[in-house]
Amino acid sequence: MTTMIKGIAASSGISIAKAYRLVEPDLSIEKKTISDESAEVKRLHRALEEAKSQLESIRNHAEKNLGPDKAAIFDAHLLVLNDPELINPIEEKIKTDHVNAEYALKETTDMFISIFENMDNEYMRERAADIRDVTKRVLAELLNVTVPNPSMISEEVIVVAEDLTPSDTAQLNRTYVKGFTTDIGGRTSHSAIMARSLEIPAVVGTKTATTDIQNGDLLILDGLTGEVHINPTEELIETYKNKQQEFEAQLAEWAKLVNEPSVSKDGKRVELVANIGTPKDVEGALKNGAEGVGLFRTEFLYMDRDELPGEQFQFEAYKSVLEGMEGKPVVVRTLDIGGDKKLSYLPLPEELNPFLGFRAIRLCLERTDIFRTQLRALLRASVYGNLKIMFPMIATLDEFRQAKAIFLEEKEKLAKEGIPTSDSIELGIMVEIPSTAVLADQFAKEVDFFSIGTNDLIQYTMAADRMNEQVSYLYQPYNPSILRLVKMVIDASHKEGKWTGMCGEMAGDETAIPLLLGLGLDEFSMSATSILKARSLIAKLSKAEMEELAEKALNMRTVDEVIELVKNAVQ
Amino acid sequence: MTTMIKGIAASSGISIAKAYRLVEPDLSIEKKTISDESAEVKRLHRALEEAKSQLESIRNHAEKNLGPDKAAIFDAHLLVLNDPELINPIEEKIKTDHVNAEYALKETTDMFISIFENMDNEYMRERAADIRDVTKRVLAELLNVTVPNPSMISEEVIVVAEDLTPSDTAQLNRTYVKGFTTDIGGRTSHSAIMARSLEIPAVVGTKTATTDIQNGDLLILDGLTGEVHINPTEELIETYKNKQQEFEAQLAEWAKLVNEPSVSKDGKRVELVANIGTPKDVEGALKNGAEGVGLFRTEFLYMDRDELPGEQFQFEAYKSVLEGMEGKPVVVRTLDIGGDKKLSYLPLPEELNPFLGFRAIRLCLERTDIFRTQLRALLRASVYGNLKIMFPMIATLDEFRQAKAIFLEEKEKLAKEGIPTSDSIELGIMVEIPSTAVLADQFAKEVDFFSIGTNDLIQYTMAADRMNEQVSYLYQPYNPSILRLVKMVIDASHKEGKWTGMCGEMAGDETAIPLLLGLGLDEFSMSATSILKARSLIAKLSKAEMEELAEKALNMRTVDEVIELVKNAVQ
Repeated sequence: MTTMIKGIAASSGISIAKAYRLVEPDLSIEKKTISDESAEVKRLHRALEEAKSQLESIRNHAEKNLGPDKAAIFDAHLLVLNDPELINPIEEKIKTDHVNAEYALKETTDMFISIFENMDNEYMRERAADIRDVTKRVLAELLNVTVPNPSMISEEVIVVAEDLTPSDTAQLNRTYVKGFTTDIGGRTSHSAIMARSLEIPAVVGTKTATTDIQNGDLLILDGLTGEVHINPTEELIETYKNKQQEFEAQLAEWAKLVNEPSVSKDGKRVELVANIGTPKDVEGALKNGAEGVGLFRTEFLYMDRDELPGEQFQFEAYKSVLEGMEGKPVVVRTLDIGGDKKLSYLPLPEELNPFLGFRAIRLCLERTDIFRTQLRALLRASVYGNLKIMFPMIATLDEFRQAKAIFLEEKEKLAKEGIPTSDSIELGIMVEIPSTAVLADQFAKEVDFFSIGTNDLIQYTMAADRMNEQVSYLYQPYNPSILRLVKMVIDASHKEGKWTGMCGEMAGDETAIPLLLGLGLDEFSMSATSILKARSLIAKLSKAEMEELAEKALNMRTVDEVIELVKNAVQ
Repeated sequence: MTTMIKGIAASSGISIAKAYRLVEPDLSIEKKTISDESAEVKRLHRALEEAKSQLESIRNHAEKNLGPDKAAIFDAHLLVLNDPELINPIEEKIKTDHVNAEYALKETTDMFISIFENMDNEYMRERAADIRDVTKRVLAELLNVTVPNPSMISEEVIVVAEDLTPSDTAQLNRTYVKGFTTDIGGRTSHSAIMARSLEIPAVVGTKTATTDIQNGDLLILDGLTGEVHINPTEELIETYKNKQQEFEAQLAEWAKLVNEPSVSKDGKRVELVANIGTPKDVEGALKNGAEGVGLFRTEFLYMDRDELPGEQFQFEAYKSVLEGMEGKPVVVRTLDIGGDKKLSYLPLPEELNPFLGFRAIRLCLERTDIFRTQLRALLRASVYGNLKIMFPMIATLDEFRQAKAIFLEEKEKLAKEGIPTSDSIELGIMVEIPSTAVLADQFAKEVDFFSIGTNDLIQYTMAADRMNEQVSYLYQPYNPSILRLVKMVIDASHKEGKWTGMCGEMAGDETAIPLLLGLGLDEFSMSATSILKARSLIAKLSKAEMEELAEKALNMRTVDEVIELVKNAVQ
């Protein structure tokens, strides 16, 4: 029996709790001939009753915790379960065809689903989705397997999944989820970023978590080392409780820095700011001592919806973040969709290489309707705080000029409509494409600031998809070529009196921080939970010494030489 | 009626010939109930006889032109057509089920194909492929549509296709094919490269060639402007015949430079060399005045086969090229497979972004068996000419060091076996990944030469898949960022006394050549047919003036400014 598995430490901290498998069960069925039809009909009804009672309980739970509109979904499911026009034909099929309940259920509901789905009527198509959902639940009952109900979690758990999608995490009750562990993913996968944002430990890329861990297994999740212990001994639990205390003592130590500025040993002031995804993250950012928001990823406003978000809806979200940050700078990134991020209601062309495709600003400059709505919402919100806007995936100055022109047009329109907007909104760009880093001196003459997006910059510079395990060894943040590009960008901005931030994973990385300080980075944007640790680290470093260190690193030949150099210089 | 369509001028020259559609016909069928079974059986036999007579004629043609082993394939097809165990059940089905011949044929052959394909026996699986091929031919007869038989072309034609794959072009009789036009593709697509290598005009990316052009239409193909005229007037034909003569006169003028060195107006000597794909291309390279081979793409040795090519087979190909080039330098690129280039017998993992994936040197460093075989073949061939080896897709110095170590091991082994190898083989790298360009000064200390692969370098630097039409506007060879990377590489090599070549499309491009001369490029490798034109252009340019031009271009902000600059400087 496997008692320990190892993955990538993706979010720090230690959790001890029971496993909750968020894994779709195998619902494949076989056709069987049965002789006792009335027993089979009884089996069907037992499963229907059980599904009903589950759904009622989920419904009540949802009403209490999520509000009546979320609960209404389950009302619709209950209606399906009580509909004789659906249930009677299943019974009939069992009796006439002498088939098992699973088969009769699947055949009948498949037929209804196919009829409803092909109707030219939105309401009926939604009914098809309801039937599909309910069928899954009844089938699971008949097959005696468990369907996960993440919204029902009511005790502290560690979620075990193959991977976690944004919609999975949206359903989780944050009060009870004490950690994640997944089969796939790396430090920059969605699950990892989400875990850091929720401030819970995570171990991703274990390959076998869903195979080795059963529902209810007691787990120790060590987000510092990447270890997951399954049903550990009392002794090991004791050891980890101590570790947990040490970690919390460390956190408490760091917490003293929450209202301190970020200053190196020799007095160089930098800004440590947070990456956020939703207005809800503002609280965590402030609690962790963020001096602002360096990256507000606006994609989340566009997700888990049926249509594009309107101007008012977006305005309120931006206003809420700007007000929440109390005048501290907030850098909002305009829509970065495409690549591996899709929206159900915005069909994009299938691409052979989506990471090299039609995404982010490329999409926004073609779908200017989407872009203008977002810019208007941002402009309207701009009077409620200190707003800066940046455009993602800028590869050429033409693109920036086009985006800026559209921004100015919308500002002008709002002025004519009598709607106030701030006159001091800085317009910057993400530097995540090599061409832009190489030409940063020219860009610096036109943009107000740079924010280096290392996740993409590294994958393009090394020509290696960071999600592809076969080439992930080439995802090398400390490769001298990456450091040189970072230097080009920082130097270019300073020459024109502008500033450079970094909002990729690298900005919060312990090995990178000394180098970035040395290279002159002005703003470090990271998961909120990394800020205090970074502030503590920077306080121990001398800017002057780090400059020398960075200079040496730029002339190294390989990534290993750089890592060795930093390790020797910084204990 | 459309009389002119426009595409991308992908290979220069003018052709006037009949259209030959290399397009798979629509072979979808309907099930019909028939009443006169014996008439239907006769229809079937008529189609079988017609297919037989076609196959016999193709077989004889193949035997004469391609040799007895290629003809044997068609013998196998004829056996299928004469097999009563296949034909009788089709007849039976028509009679018993009262269905049309198409349906009876398809149902019966599908069954046999499925049985044979699932057998654990290579021989039987090949029979399945034979049946599939023969069925297609008989079905086409029944449906009265035409199956293209490219190997049967016996008059001058212009091939019209959606796209041309390497295996399509392998089947074409080069004597009769006077041009290509395709629906999709760009200047760097396979069809375009192939056309330039065959020295025939090509217009690609017309979008509608296969829709607008019928078999036998008379076409004028203008590979200089990208125009395709369909069934032109006599007058237009006359005009184009004159243009054709002018073009040929121009070629004759350039031909005088065939044995001349490549020298700028002010005496700077550079090397103009050819990109080749097979030993057959050597003749064209020399005829077009190549001073060597700057890129021998070895992938073609691995294609259209059932298994990896052996050492002896490769050795002979390399020896043939080295001897054929009569001591002139030959730069061989080691296997660059993966990305969009697949081998049927070498299954690779499905990748989300194959261009950022497991390909070229990344694959070779894992499948060292494949790599070692190639290096041994190259080493053995090295004594027959002036061999240089380069590794593709190098992103880090570690990769180059690993590749070099394997090379030296194989050299050592051969020495122990008493097999002579050259001691002066230069080992270089392709610079096609931004990290390598940015770190060129460090690479230059360890490699013997650089060859800049612009096709990939541009797509990674701009983060835009060059095959993706939605972002193809970002494929900008003259973007100042690209020029800067090129400069970094050239300067780095010269500082260490090494040299830099370029083997991407850009090296033969009229707008790029003045800039590249100014940047100090040593070797320009291009389609053989571009060499004389480039030599003529370089003879008109002053290196000193181009240096000034390049310096200005490096400080431009956008690609349009660069193009304008070059246009004004060079008439």
